[in-house]
Amino acid sequence: MSAHVNQQRLWDSLMRLAEIGKTAKGGVGRIALTDLDRQGRDLFCTWARDAGCEIRTDRIGNIFARRPGRNPDAAPVVTGSHLDSQPLGGKFDGAFGVMAGLEVIRALNDAGIETEAPIEVVDWTDEEGARFAAGCIGSAVFAGMRPLDEALALIDADGISVETALDEIGYAGAAAVGDIDFKAYFEAHIEQGPILEAEGLPIGAVLGAQGQRCFMVTLVGEDGHAGTLPMAKRHDAFMAAAEMSLTLEALASTYEPAAVITVGHVRVVPNSRNTVPGRCVFSIDSRHPDEDTLERMEAEMTGTMQAIADRRGVALEVAPVTRAAPVAFNPVCIDAVRQACQARQVRFIDMHSGAGHDACKIAKVAPTGMIFVPCERGISHNEAENARPEDLATGAQVLLDVMLATANN
Amino acid sequence: MSAHVNQQRLWDSLMRLAEIGKTAKGGVGRIALTDLDRQGRDLFCTWARDAGCEIRTDRIGNIFARRPGRNPDAAPVVTGSHLDSQPLGGKFDGAFGVMAGLEVIRALNDAGIETEAPIEVVDWTDEEGARFAAGCIGSAVFAGMRPLDEALALIDADGISVETALDEIGYAGAAAVGDIDFKAYFEAHIEQGPILEAEGLPIGAVLGAQGQRCFMVTLVGEDGHAGTLPMAKRHDAFMAAAEMSLTLEALASTYEPAAVITVGHVRVVPNSRNTVPGRCVFSIDSRHPDEDTLERMEAEMTGTMQAIADRRGVALEVAPVTRAAPVAFNPVCIDAVRQACQARQVRFIDMHSGAGHDACKIAKVAPTGMIFVPCERGISHNEAENARPEDLATGAQVLLDVMLATANN
Repeated sequence: MSAHVNQQRLWDSLMRLAEIGKTAKGGVGRIALTDLDRQGRDLFCTWARDAGCEIRTDRIGNIFARRPGRNPDAAPVVTGSHLDSQPLGGKFDGAFGVMAGLEVIRALNDAGIETEAPIEVVDWTDEEGARFAAGCIGSAVFAGMRPLDEALALIDADGISVETALDEIGYAGAAAVGDIDFKAYFEAHIEQGPILEAEGLPIGAVLGAQGQRCFMVTLVGEDGHAGTLPMAKRHDAFMAAAEMSLTLEALASTYEPAAVITVGHVRVVPNSRNTVPGRCVFSIDSRHPDEDTLERMEAEMTGTMQAIADRRGVALEVAPVTRAAPVAFNPVCIDAVRQACQARQVRFIDMHSGAGHDACKIAKVAPTGMIFVPCERGISHNEAENARPEDLATGAQVLLDVMLATANN
Repeated sequence: MSAHVNQQRLWDSLMRLAEIGKTAKGGVGRIALTDLDRQGRDLFCTWARDAGCEIRTDRIGNIFARRPGRNPDAAPVVTGSHLDSQPLGGKFDGAFGVMAGLEVIRALNDAGIETEAPIEVVDWTDEEGARFAAGCIGSAVFAGMRPLDEALALIDADGISVETALDEIGYAGAAAVGDIDFKAYFEAHIEQGPILEAEGLPIGAVLGAQGQRCFMVTLVGEDGHAGTLPMAKRHDAFMAAAEMSLTLEALASTYEPAAVITVGHVRVVPNSRNTVPGRCVFSIDSRHPDEDTLERMEAEMTGTMQAIADRRGVALEVAPVTRAAPVAFNPVCIDAVRQACQARQVRFIDMHSGAGHDACKIAKVAPTGMIFVPCERGISHNEAENARPEDLATGAQVLLDVMLATANN
């Protein structure tokens, strides 16, 4: 029993969807719970109904499109992602996961295949967090990681709440959030990183998501005159930050390829050309798929930074900002993805997700896996985001095979 | 023939002067050509006249107070500095040089000593450059390094010209600028650096001023997602800047103690915690007393930065911003300072000035020397600027001895 995705149909659907919120540079700006988001949701619902699905919307606005199975009491096998985007986002982040799910249903229809368990495609509300300063709102509430009332009360910069915005676009559904069990959840997504493209591989079998620990570091040395203060007498906060940053970079490289450490934000005070900086604040974003390793990395970072600060006579303060534990996907789901690749002779690698996804939330309440496809130069959250039609089709085909196998298992 | 400065009188004069423009934290805010500057000038003129001096003001507002010599045709031996300050400056920067000159005259009067050549004390207009965005205005015009018309036409943030401001405070003098030859010029000044205090030495015999070369460096790498972009695939502009900065620091240290290199200004783009920086702009301020060494340092800097940029796959642009040649003071003047110290058994070291001074301009047109005294922790351009009465008196005494010897030579 086999079904084949239609590469052109998948691509055309993505391009049609990308017309909604199209930006000047060919990207997409379809911010959650705006009228553009409504148009995207409406189009998805229309296409899903045309494909024979029943639509159910829950109170946080998550939309579930169900293709019935032979056994109406069986827990559905679910796929999906999100239709909202960054303000200057791309055509594929999120949209691919939803359209791939739709293509799975269309291809099953084409092949006349009935599954044992129902197949569902979900559009999770506001994954991007571009409007309400919290991401993965729909999936987090679904997974019980954020209370519904709290999520509905989140407000945007204009003071408009999620609840009001949902009402305004007509997607404040009646269904209780999280009232259905998933047999399994699979999410297809562009990698948003450069690994698959660089390796020339069409599929990543995602093992889970990296844990993340972020810190803000404050260094206090002593201001000084750039002309009169000899090098040996300086307590230069920026030079301390520079040395620490290079040490962090080297440290991450010792845990390669899984570890990444980023110094993305740097503020020098007084930031004057002819003053030795007395103060420097910088951020550390450290990520690794393994909690113990993250812990070791933190200890190493702290120790090495303290040593540098002491040697340079600079005061060091390290304040934790964010701490997210790694997410491990379900071994059966991961293996199902690998087996689907092997059966089609599609080359793949096991990899971790560096970014957060709705699947990371759903993993708390359902057996979950993800399928990554390459995107051009790893660029995402950017109007230039791009992916090849054949890679997207390969991802959708693997998704179809995995869901079909799981639904009939 | 000998005269002795009066430590208490010198200190009291400095403290009385510091009442004019006194700031909340005990500093001085006496910006050039404001009414506070006028009050400072008035007080200086009153004291100078009381000490028997004739006052002459030139068209750029420089004030010369002359104590006549036996030979009215002899070129005067001149000392001085500036009475203007930074907006939140200290009580000693500039003021010490002028008050030390006044104390020289008072002490000569006390001792009943007549000199062969006249002795003059000068207050140069606007050394600090806090108002008209050009420093050393009076001394630069005097030395022929800036045309008078151009200087008079400089405007402040409110569009008020130097010419108008001089008129308003009544110090637009009639004398042509630079119409007198100096037999020699000596300027006493706080070090504005930490060396003398750290070494426990009361006097620095200043050999000249460091040359300065400043650059703005622009690095362009590639933005990336802090979670998904592996370390090995990054072109992180900030990490490149950090590595370059440390290399510059190490380079300066190889030319210690004379060389200093400062990275005072750093801008990271997009400066977001979870984005690998694609762009970084930073400043380099390099100083050394020797032009050839500055040239070698620049070549080394450029070479090492290019190597780092190439290795990291980051584009490098180095734009020159400021280029000031080193200033060498007159060997006879330097030696006169050393001899005065030796004669009084005052310990001293030869040193270079890291900051700019009016003396650096006057050195173009007259035999020039400088006398540095320690200041607390090297702090200057700051309300906390401080110096010890005994150190200031020692500096004034050396100044007196040097001027007396030069005037009678």
